[in-house]
Amino acid sequence: METFIRVLKDVKPNNPILIEGLPGIGNIGRIVAGYLIEELETEKIAELYSPHFLPFVILHEDVARVLKCEFHYYKDPKGKNDLIILIGDSQSGDQEGYGHYEIAEKILDYAEDLGVKKVFTIGGFGTGEIEKDEPMVLGAVNDPKLLEEYKGYGINFEETSLKLGMIVGATGLLLGLSKLRGMDGLCLLGETAGFPILTDPKAGEAVLKILMKILNLDISLEKLEKRVKDMENFLQKIERIQQQALKQMGQEKSDEDELRYIG
Amino acid sequence: METFIRVLKDVKPNNPILIEGLPGIGNIGRIVAGYLIEELETEKIAELYSPHFLPFVILHEDVARVLKCEFHYYKDPKGKNDLIILIGDSQSGDQEGYGHYEIAEKILDYAEDLGVKKVFTIGGFGTGEIEKDEPMVLGAVNDPKLLEEYKGYGINFEETSLKLGMIVGATGLLLGLSKLRGMDGLCLLGETAGFPILTDPKAGEAVLKILMKILNLDISLEKLEKRVKDMENFLQKIERIQQQALKQMGQEKSDEDELRYIG
Amino acid sequence: METFIRVLKDVKPNNPILIEGLPGIGNIGRIVAGYLIEELETEKIAELYSPHFLPFVILHEDVARVLKCEFHYYKDPKGKNDLIILIGDSQSGDQEGYGHYEIAEKILDYAEDLGVKKVFTIGGFGTGEIEKDEPMVLGAVNDPKLLEEYKGYGINFEETSLKLGMIVGATGLLLGLSKLRGMDGLCLLGETAGFPILTDPKAGEAVLKILMKILNLDISLEKLEKRVKDMENFLQKIERIQQQALKQMGQEKSDEDELRYIG
Amino acid sequence: METFIRVLKDVKPNNPILIEGLPGIGNIGRIVAGYLIEELETEKIAELYSPHFLPFVILHEDVARVLKCEFHYYKDPKGKNDLIILIGDSQSGDQEGYGHYEIAEKILDYAEDLGVKKVFTIGGFGTGEIEKDEPMVLGAVNDPKLLEEYKGYGINFEETSLKLGMIVGATGLLLGLSKLRGMDGLCLLGETAGFPILTDPKAGEAVLKILMKILNLDISLEKLEKRVKDMENFLQKIERIQQQALKQMGQEKSDEDELRYIG
Repeated sequence: METFIRVLKDVKPNNPILIEGLPGIGNIGRIVAGYLIEELETEKIAELYSPHFLPFVILHEDVARVLKCEFHYYKDPKGKNDLIILIGDSQSGDQEGYGHYEIAEKILDYAEDLGVKKVFTIGGFGTGEIEKDEPMVLGAVNDPKLLEEYKGYGINFEETSLKLGMIVGATGLLLGLSKLRGMDGLCLLGETAGFPILTDPKAGEAVLKILMKILNLDISLEKLEKRVKDMENFLQKIERIQQQALKQMGQEKSDEDELRYIG
Repeated sequence: METFIRVLKDVKPNNPILIEGLPGIGNIGRIVAGYLIEELETEKIAELYSPHFLPFVILHEDVARVLKCEFHYYKDPKGKNDLIILIGDSQSGDQEGYGHYEIAEKILDYAEDLGVKKVFTIGGFGTGEIEKDEPMVLGAVNDPKLLEEYKGYGINFEETSLKLGMIVGATGLLLGLSKLRGMDGLCLLGETAGFPILTDPKAGEAVLKILMKILNLDISLEKLEKRVKDMENFLQKIERIQQQALKQMGQEKSDEDELRYIG
Repeated sequence: METFIRVLKDVKPNNPILIEGLPGIGNIGRIVAGYLIEELETEKIAELYSPHFLPFVILHEDVARVLKCEFHYYKDPKGKNDLIILIGDSQSGDQEGYGHYEIAEKILDYAEDLGVKKVFTIGGFGTGEIEKDEPMVLGAVNDPKLLEEYKGYGINFEETSLKLGMIVGATGLLLGLSKLRGMDGLCLLGETAGFPILTDPKAGEAVLKILMKILNLDISLEKLEKRVKDMENFLQKIERIQQQALKQMGQEKSDEDELRYIG
Repeated sequence: METFIRVLKDVKPNNPILIEGLPGIGNIGRIVAGYLIEELETEKIAELYSPHFLPFVILHEDVARVLKCEFHYYKDPKGKNDLIILIGDSQSGDQEGYGHYEIAEKILDYAEDLGVKKVFTIGGFGTGEIEKDEPMVLGAVNDPKLLEEYKGYGINFEETSLKLGMIVGATGLLLGLSKLRGMDGLCLLGETAGFPILTDPKAGEAVLKILMKILNLDISLEKLEKRVKDMENFLQKIERIQQQALKQMGQEKSDEDELRYIG
């Protein structure tokens, strides 16, 4: 059995950009993708299921369902760039890496079918410190020519290589693997304390502001804090459940080890 | 090599319902499926084998055989709903989850071939306490419309989401993945102490009573306790053997970790 | 990449019996298969390679080679049962079991191609005690009718179920999976102390004697002890190398855990 | 998803020899392959990507990219043996071995397409001691006839079997698996302290000298030390990043275990 995508609606997007916002450090990507989906007029067009997610159903709003990712479609009224927004419950649960690659490749297969030529991946980077006035946004590209294109938006590209050196999980792999398909890739990482369960609206806001400028989107950020609060409950529930599931499967970690930091 | 199903007899069931009862917490599913198979006039129609079961043969009744699941067919004399009852030695032995997904998908492939439109999965949920007068039966569905359909049978749907939040293993995945094939799914979880090796007839009885009402089955529960005793020996043997096998394979767990709780 | 068999010579055996003797507890199977290959006039007809063996080459007799199993062909001069003798460096190195199933299935694919209808698997069972005058030979079959067929050879079938309950690895899986292909299966397990690295000629001799009676083979056992000594060096080298390789790959076990007991 | 090779340029090499130099103990292979690529006039003709590499992108020279291996082509001006030089960021990250086999087989598939009949693999062997005046070069072949062919170059074949007994990872598997395709294989192992992160130019030089004699190459070794210094930064960065990534993925090892020694 392989990871598969279930297309719910066929669309023909116009110059689409894929925006990835899967759970990770500070859940920055999840916040940004979630807020875009709620504030823009979007439509769910596909779902992704994978045997590399943990083997359980979550009980949410009275219904049991397996873990999944969703693709939401935003039709740009200005006719410039439609958006394909990828949001999800989880990243790959395997510890070797294989599942991360398979999921990223399936996402890119679908993106390629939709005509995507540009991929924005969104994540966080942990500093270990909780308080921070102005979260920085680090950036990375998959082609040097893009440094020029994105230099005017307040993204710090210099420190990414120095401070991080790498980007783990979907946020990293989609950036790197999209290059092999001739797609341009930009990664935005919000500065945050660094724990997945601490959903960080401030870092999400910092990334959103840059993204809105790049995409020329006009969204009010007023409701962000409230929305993040709502998401937080769900995200903490999933996080708690994953730990519980790992425990039931005999993979219990010691308390110190229990958090994984997939960026 | 993939999980495969070996069809022993071709049948054309009438509006069949799949009932899953694989080993798990308190072995509730195993008890319920086992009792139905013994008390109803059923016939074995298929077997499932998987490289995700542990790699050994068990010696049982003088013969060595690999781990397997079995599909038993019950022809409803009232012509309403034939039953396909799934029972087995084991769930997937892999710790990453992949095997659980593959096995669940193979089961649903076969169920789909048989025309199954409804799936009932049966498991247990552990409370950690051994004594209990009246075991509760928690429920979950894979579509909100089903809450209405199953509300009159004494199933507690409210606490499932609050208390559990998730259902691990085949019991959960078959519920969730059947939805993607347009099947209705209902999960019944008997309240029990919570250890796989403590086969719990009382919780099994509680689930059986509800199932009989839903399916309009007329079975005497008199022999249940005796039958559970018989099953118990076999189930404890398998459990003991699995631990032994893991030990021989160099996966020995510490005593505290040694029990896995797949629901 | 899958486990594959490289056929070196096409043969058309007459009523062939597959005899498996891969490394395991006390290396009984390895001794028996090795001695048969040396004492009978046999010919290597195929090799098996697998990504589930550990990823290294061994340096043996001045040449580096990957781990493999070999099929040797013995043409029965009496025209009754030709033998296909399976010997090898290693069993699957994976800890989940998947590799064991894949390798067993590939072996049986090839056996089926050769017309094999009967499989004898040979292993050991560990008692934990080193000294023993007369090693017992436990047996198991994959069909109850075979108990009658093999009852007159001094094989103890009764205690196998009671004492062992299961047989792990190739010795078990080939016995169980061959049944699904309509092959008869007999497993012979020599009583031994229980450590892979302690190659046990006495237990091997006990099994050989029974096997010779069943197969009506006329082999002198005089050279057995010397031959076992020769094999021992090679087997201890492989065992030592496997531990070293696991260590280099970051899978180092503590001293207590380091031995695996695949029967 | 499988490991795949992305061909960048079709070439028709003349009697090509594959030279493997992936990271490993002392990074000897990496140094040798890297120096050959820089000093000879070579051209990159293909890249290899694998889901068995760790799931992250590295940030290098302002750009994020996934881990990969590269095939560089050297056209022999003397018309004797063109070279296909394999260099890379990483070996397989999986701990079971499966990934190592898959990657080695894909490399050999491509080599076979190019007409390769000879494979030289290069690695290191660790002595545990840091200082050493004259590093020894151990050798191994995949066919006894080659001992004669390569005996005059100062390669110590005798001690390889005695001291090592095995060669782990790509360096070993390419040597062993190439034999199954009828290719001749020679492995050269430079003596070094034994830690991957301690890139060892002296051992690299010892191997290079032998290789140059065998291949009749005329390269100045003057720039070697400087070049190794340059590579070292990159290699240490990758090594550090891999440890960091494993940590983020919840596979953190204790300090003592953290280094893997794939030869």
